[in-house]
Amino acid sequence: MKTLDRYLPAMTWLRSYSKADLANDGMASLIATILLIPQSMGYAMLAGLPAYLGLYASILPSIVYSLLGTSRSLAVGPVALSSMMTAAIVLPFALPGSEEYLAIAILLSLISGVFLILMSLLKMGFLTNLLSHPVISGFISASAILVAVGQLKHLLGVQGHGNNLIELIQNMSKHLDEFNLATLLLSLVVISLLLLSKRYLASFCRTIGCSEKVASLLGRAGPVFVVILATLAVYFFSLDQQGVRIVGHIQLGWPSIDFSPISLDTLIALLPGAFLISVVGFVGSVSVAQSFAAKRREDIHPNQELFGLGAANIASALSGAFPVTGGFSRTVVNTSAGAKSPMTGILTAVFMLVVLLFMTPLFYYLPNAVLAASIIVAILQLVDIKDFVRIYRFSKQEALALGATFWIVLLVGMEAGILVGIGLSLLFFLWHTSHPHIAIVGRVPGTQHYRNVKRYQVETQPDIITIRIDENLFFANARVLEDYVLGVVAQQPNIKHLIIMCNAVNMIDASALDSLDTIAHRLQSAGVTLHFSEIKGPVMDKLKQSNLLDTLSGQVFLTQHQAIEKLSARNA
Amino acid sequence: MKTLDRYLPAMTWLRSYSKADLANDGMASLIATILLIPQSMGYAMLAGLPAYLGLYASILPSIVYSLLGTSRSLAVGPVALSSMMTAAIVLPFALPGSEEYLAIAILLSLISGVFLILMSLLKMGFLTNLLSHPVISGFISASAILVAVGQLKHLLGVQGHGNNLIELIQNMSKHLDEFNLATLLLSLVVISLLLLSKRYLASFCRTIGCSEKVASLLGRAGPVFVVILATLAVYFFSLDQQGVRIVGHIQLGWPSIDFSPISLDTLIALLPGAFLISVVGFVGSVSVAQSFAAKRREDIHPNQELFGLGAANIASALSGAFPVTGGFSRTVVNTSAGAKSPMTGILTAVFMLVVLLFMTPLFYYLPNAVLAASIIVAILQLVDIKDFVRIYRFSKQEALALGATFWIVLLVGMEAGILVGIGLSLLFFLWHTSHPHIAIVGRVPGTQHYRNVKRYQVETQPDIITIRIDENLFFANARVLEDYVLGVVAQQPNIKHLIIMCNAVNMIDASALDSLDTIAHRLQSAGVTLHFSEIKGPVMDKLKQSNLLDTLSGQVFLTQHQAIEKLSARNA
Repeated sequence: MKTLDRYLPAMTWLRSYSKADLANDGMASLIATILLIPQSMGYAMLAGLPAYLGLYASILPSIVYSLLGTSRSLAVGPVALSSMMTAAIVLPFALPGSEEYLAIAILLSLISGVFLILMSLLKMGFLTNLLSHPVISGFISASAILVAVGQLKHLLGVQGHGNNLIELIQNMSKHLDEFNLATLLLSLVVISLLLLSKRYLASFCRTIGCSEKVASLLGRAGPVFVVILATLAVYFFSLDQQGVRIVGHIQLGWPSIDFSPISLDTLIALLPGAFLISVVGFVGSVSVAQSFAAKRREDIHPNQELFGLGAANIASALSGAFPVTGGFSRTVVNTSAGAKSPMTGILTAVFMLVVLLFMTPLFYYLPNAVLAASIIVAILQLVDIKDFVRIYRFSKQEALALGATFWIVLLVGMEAGILVGIGLSLLFFLWHTSHPHIAIVGRVPGTQHYRNVKRYQVETQPDIITIRIDENLFFANARVLEDYVLGVVAQQPNIKHLIIMCNAVNMIDASALDSLDTIAHRLQSAGVTLHFSEIKGPVMDKLKQSNLLDTLSGQVFLTQHQAIEKLSARNA
Repeated sequence: MKTLDRYLPAMTWLRSYSKADLANDGMASLIATILLIPQSMGYAMLAGLPAYLGLYASILPSIVYSLLGTSRSLAVGPVALSSMMTAAIVLPFALPGSEEYLAIAILLSLISGVFLILMSLLKMGFLTNLLSHPVISGFISASAILVAVGQLKHLLGVQGHGNNLIELIQNMSKHLDEFNLATLLLSLVVISLLLLSKRYLASFCRTIGCSEKVASLLGRAGPVFVVILATLAVYFFSLDQQGVRIVGHIQLGWPSIDFSPISLDTLIALLPGAFLISVVGFVGSVSVAQSFAAKRREDIHPNQELFGLGAANIASALSGAFPVTGGFSRTVVNTSAGAKSPMTGILTAVFMLVVLLFMTPLFYYLPNAVLAASIIVAILQLVDIKDFVRIYRFSKQEALALGATFWIVLLVGMEAGILVGIGLSLLFFLWHTSHPHIAIVGRVPGTQHYRNVKRYQVETQPDIITIRIDENLFFANARVLEDYVLGVVAQQPNIKHLIIMCNAVNMIDASALDSLDTIAHRLQSAGVTLHFSEIKGPVMDKLKQSNLLDTLSGQVFLTQHQAIEKLSARNA
């Protein structure tokens, strides 16, 4: 039973699932489906693919994740970030609209699924922690701008692709002759309606007496109304005859997945991109899952999440669609529609399938420009300047990592930006740990507490000196303590006892052990006794595997206070 | 005056340098010169260059370092490690013996000097800390084996080069037809004599009544006697007619340095190798300098060391020679000869110049095999299996880093080995810091000291819980504390106060700040008050730049004990 629960987390809620739950989730799913249709289609376009593939990507992956994921709220499907990464990764290999482009997008989803499952099996989830907050922040802001600019082409009716701002603008300006006035006018109307509905629709509903819940739902439904209105406008005014591009006929049936146009070289060249989209998608998804889980006091298991998302991506590939992940806006749509369990994910998928099977003619006159406009309006919110200011105040180095990621994503490309960001974060971290803070400490009067002599009025003794090193002792800083201790002893020849206070040392590696050995030998030849205090349990366990303590001239004290008391008593 | 001292560290000892000092250092230098001649020539051969270049590389670099370095003991010149790295780096570009090979070796020395000086100016010395003890240990052991095997060719009289064990053995076996019996016999005799003299010469001298100092010096002079004997043997038995290769005629005069055979591509391809030889050479040199400095209670300034070694390498390039650095065996030779100041470095260089100018005919009949044999005997001591065993006992991960470095250096090459070693060290460190130890702590009875409830019999209170996280809070583990804290609160619903004890937190970055913010919000909505205790000075300074503490529901306590006392009093 436990094993089944572990590999099929859905069992934990399925067992107690009631008819009343089903009725509730059914209603919620119906609402969510209506809201998710334009969003999913828009994200497919964002990935450089036909809009209807967004519906394909919302069916199987959603069911698979509902059964295998550990979050009870997370909704999985096409998501802005992974869709735009898909476009960025596939673009160098094929032209959007070509069969090859689609085949590579499907393959990307497959490889990314395999990577996620491998990471789950190898318990490598911790690697995703390498994406620090500043790097993610810079990446999202720059990507949002890239996406918005990339979608401009649909608003103008021109073509133009690119992996960075420069390419995008160059390519679009090459196609400016395709500019279509009807499309632009429609787009402007649509954007105005979207902004107005976003701002006023919910409060308007409240004014006319809707309940809070209905008002908030209708507020979110703005894009749906706009889509309906625009579709009707195209139909009645035959705008498609004026050059406005529409979704058109939607091809049905199980997609034929054909990887034959892809060469082995392309496959290999895809691997870094696939890895990146897996990691970025996972990090985004887990943070959404965790923030919803916390509200409900639930547990998210990152390794199982890797597995669930990996399976969802493989399911997406089998559906002939593109990479998916858990998304914030999808999840908000679900929960605000009243979803209470992952059953909503399954039911939404079923409704989506029904729509796909029987209602696609309704989308025939849906103009692409409307989908692009809703993406632009939604995504520009992700540009977060306040976050940069906040981080800049907190740490110049981290602000630099954010800025570098932002500009490199914008001007060079997503992968380069992420890699430089991670590299800088690691470099700054290593710089920090290899320049540790070291303090000489004394007793805060009236307590058993020892603090930095430079910051507090503390009591010290002439022949005993206590050095507190504020860092793990490992290869990057092994020699720093050595230099410091020997420097102190050289300056103060009347020291008889030196205590290294280890309350901030959480790890000691072989390089540091060498260094401690050296310190011990040098102090011995200088006639100074070396003691340790407040070594933590796990560090002590480790030290016992070495012979440092066997040859120690002094003692190891549980607390710093005991050390000072015993050594002073002995001196007296 | 201070500025001069800073840029010309020699001023600190030159000012008080007396005639008595000069007499002492002069005697020491004379002895050192005799001992260093065969060593330097051997290392030049190790670098794949004519033996006499070892003398060239021992003159200018030694003088330059004596004036610019901060160590009073370190001897700079050709050294085993950097010589064999030179061979490994230059070999892919040119054949040993060719003009191009020499030109590239000289260029390597020049670039490496420039790198070292740049690192000094940019204060990037901390980057060298990336070379952890296990990586260095694995690298040295594997390199020593490579060198020993590489020198076998001189013992057999055959040719054969290679960047790894496989290439070496393949190439030598291709040239087995050149095998020369006279060379092999001479080599075997020489090796036996070297081993015997190493083992028994010093004690034999003591037995016949020499003073300890003389005995130890004569003990080290074994290779010199062997070199003299072998040279005489070649001369009297005309072994050179039997195919035994000899040093032969030594070309004199300022070398013509001609970089014209080197293409720009080669120059660029040399950069990674030049960087590596700089860093490895610097690390080796500084550790030798530090171990000698400690005995004399002197200070080594790593940034000035970078400058001094960089200048020495440029000096070596200008002399038409190859990369140099500070070496352990050179330094031991100097100090055991009685050297007391860097003046020895200058005087040794002068004597070396005299030898080069007037005494090279003495080396005409010196057989290469003898130099190779002394290198093999000396270098195999560097293979350190005990170190592996010691590290394996201490940490399986670090032993893996050592093992990977060792095998990759041996089977693939030095650069690949070092890079993999550094990569693994970083990965393991990140793994460790992203899986931090977290403990719930209570009061050790009768003290003001708080320890892990799982390891000690401690006092706790039902509605107050204290969590101690044993790691810096940064991007790689930002979410771990969040999960832990929320997990604890979910399991123990009667908690009113939660204290995060920060005595082991030495750094908080923006990602962790986010996480603490989340914790604060979630605890607030769960009705738990959040407090902090024992935040260190530098971390507190940083937190004040954020708004975390402004919105805190609880308090920040100087000591954990104060936190518990105040909170219990309030509850009562």
